[in-house]
Amino acid sequence: MQKAIIIICDGMADRPLRELDNKTPLEVAKTPNMDKIAVDGLSGLMHTVDVGVRPGSDTSHVALFGYDPYKYYTGRGPFECAGIGMEVRPGDVAIRGNAGTIDENNIVVDRRAGRIMSTEEIVDYLGDIEIDGVKFFLKPSLAHRVGIVLRGKGLSGNVTDQDPHLTQKKILEVKPTDDTKEAKFTADVLNKFTKVVKEKLIDAPFNIERSKNNLLPANTILYRGAGSVPKDLISFKDKFNVNAAFVAGGPMYQGIAKVFGLDVFEFEKTEGITGLPDSKINFKVGKAMELIKNHDIVFIHFKGADTLSEDCDYEGEIKYIEKIDKAISPLAKENDFLVVLTCDHTTCSELKIHTADPVPLTIKGHGVRTDDLNAFSERECAKGRMGSIKGEQLIPIVIDLMGLSKMYGA
Amino acid sequence: MQKAIIIICDGMADRPLRELDNKTPLEVAKTPNMDKIAVDGLSGLMHTVDVGVRPGSDTSHVALFGYDPYKYYTGRGPFECAGIGMEVRPGDVAIRGNAGTIDENNIVVDRRAGRIMSTEEIVDYLGDIEIDGVKFFLKPSLAHRVGIVLRGKGLSGNVTDQDPHLTQKKILEVKPTDDTKEAKFTADVLNKFTKVVKEKLIDAPFNIERSKNNLLPANTILYRGAGSVPKDLISFKDKFNVNAAFVAGGPMYQGIAKVFGLDVFEFEKTEGITGLPDSKINFKVGKAMELIKNHDIVFIHFKGADTLSEDCDYEGEIKYIEKIDKAISPLAKENDFLVVLTCDHTTCSELKIHTADPVPLTIKGHGVRTDDLNAFSERECAKGRMGSIKGEQLIPIVIDLMGLSKMYGA
Repeated sequence: MQKAIIIICDGMADRPLRELDNKTPLEVAKTPNMDKIAVDGLSGLMHTVDVGVRPGSDTSHVALFGYDPYKYYTGRGPFECAGIGMEVRPGDVAIRGNAGTIDENNIVVDRRAGRIMSTEEIVDYLGDIEIDGVKFFLKPSLAHRVGIVLRGKGLSGNVTDQDPHLTQKKILEVKPTDDTKEAKFTADVLNKFTKVVKEKLIDAPFNIERSKNNLLPANTILYRGAGSVPKDLISFKDKFNVNAAFVAGGPMYQGIAKVFGLDVFEFEKTEGITGLPDSKINFKVGKAMELIKNHDIVFIHFKGADTLSEDCDYEGEIKYIEKIDKAISPLAKENDFLVVLTCDHTTCSELKIHTADPVPLTIKGHGVRTDDLNAFSERECAKGRMGSIKGEQLIPIVIDLMGLSKMYGA
Repeated sequence: MQKAIIIICDGMADRPLRELDNKTPLEVAKTPNMDKIAVDGLSGLMHTVDVGVRPGSDTSHVALFGYDPYKYYTGRGPFECAGIGMEVRPGDVAIRGNAGTIDENNIVVDRRAGRIMSTEEIVDYLGDIEIDGVKFFLKPSLAHRVGIVLRGKGLSGNVTDQDPHLTQKKILEVKPTDDTKEAKFTADVLNKFTKVVKEKLIDAPFNIERSKNNLLPANTILYRGAGSVPKDLISFKDKFNVNAAFVAGGPMYQGIAKVFGLDVFEFEKTEGITGLPDSKINFKVGKAMELIKNHDIVFIHFKGADTLSEDCDYEGEIKYIEKIDKAISPLAKENDFLVVLTCDHTTCSELKIHTADPVPLTIKGHGVRTDDLNAFSERECAKGRMGSIKGEQLIPIVIDLMGLSKMYGA
């Protein structure tokens, strides 16, 4: 049986840019290893969620793991919380939070409390919170971020954000998005939570200290993206009958993988895997080569191109793509297993947003019906003989190439 | 933000014809401007409704406006009636009619009452009709055509046609197509309407006049395509968050656009926009260039190729295609907004019918991942790198290229 390594280059696909003479960063970058994978493989285009649908980072990964995002995506909260190692049980509601700064009228002054470096003190100070029988679990995440898990009876993830997503706006009242009593109850409990947090944080010693140092106080938690893990979720292992590992730096990506039951490799801070453009991505490839020994499928996720694209730093993106290319050179030479090279979505550097343009996709390995491309890029892969697929179809195709798919019929 | 002009050439796609040395009219026509759009753009094929589904003019436009025709098409009546400026409210049933000629045994002698030029006299003479609490509103449309709107309690569009669609056939009894009492009631009321109309028209002065002049009497209204506007319809503006205008001559096309909430440009009769092959199509392009100033998307609809194809007049069709090509020359040179060139369906000149063959599609504009075509045609666009899409996916793709699509996920 051939195993498979799947390389996901987050936001690496782009649109042709005027500044690059109507080429994309991927077309401009020197990528001999990606090109070799395309030369040796079968290529096509992939609409991660669906044709004309602009994917989020979360919905695209739900699809890339072989699940229907319209069924299994219920908001980013559960992924974010699982990603920072919080337990998220069926029935729990999980929410992403930011330490933020509001004024006396609840107007948001800063969405990151002056780019506060950690929420550890805040979470410690808030301690155990229980409102109307619902327990609130908080855990610090990267920098100003915090995970919030609600556990109790009769909760629903179908509630609106409290975070107005903008400064100079008042924090929002949470509202149910459906008519159920669960959604109404959850909205009520969350609105009480907002008040409790404000009352507690106003006199917190670290805020008095921050004021002395002319720093904005962390006097609220702004939160958004409530969701709950679907009750009928079947794990990746049970759905596809293979075991898979996921190598990524970003906690949210790790969280999605955890929710779907993949083995998530946890990096030590000293290993230089940051989820940022400076991440030591060579190390990820080495780790994948190690993990493939006792897994059927290993995903590697490279985040940097997306971040650089969203900053319109296409020159930086070109360098980062070349950095990925060097890092994956052992995989380009690989003959023992399938290598899949793709992206989770297009990020348009000019618009600084994800777009719905399909992403390039190549599968190389034994038994693959190769075509005759010369390079790996958005426009080259469009000539590939795989045609267009949906993101959700990739894993079934890979597992079938591995010879492990279930027959439908007899 | 890039705006978009979408050019719909009704029925311009065809099958290869023996008479044209196995080329299509579009392949034979000299179309330097269409070809330039394809050279500069990204092309593909579009299955307007779905693969292997033969679209009507109405269902294809529902899809081209970005709506699922299987959900939002409920018969042609509402579109036809809205197109001639009739009010069609949710719950109303709307039907298309023809002034026709029947004999004493209700056998259809002529489906257009000897190609009668207007139904104004007939509608005036019939006056107000009310049957079992249902009010009938009639309005003259082009030539022999008439719009019929039923307003009252407990109506349903799920009834069969009374028009047998053929001469020498008896007019049909209207029947319910489902088991609801609404459908049964509507069928009963319509069958009574048929009788009332016959009784009234038999002695109408204009029919006595027509007989004297050896013209066929307009002694019935043949009707077909009952339907009602779906109650949950969200307007184009609310669905896609852009405002769109529609430039077309044919009332039915205008009606579809009206039902979906597009701004429909109304031509004066003197402007030469006829919805027929002689239509002054230059004027439409000029109007679109004007409308794009205060709209995000402008559709232009050219009807002639379909009409000529359905008459098997492929030589006329070639000339008409060349006429479109000249008319759109300002759009081929356009660099400020997206230009989309496509058809609503294939019309096979040999069979004189719409067919399910996919239609050519090109999108040109900034940020589009161009390919390397030399011409715009059915077989050239099949080589394009957009691959195949469904009609319903076109608007989401265009809106995403405009940078205005909503993200699914976060």
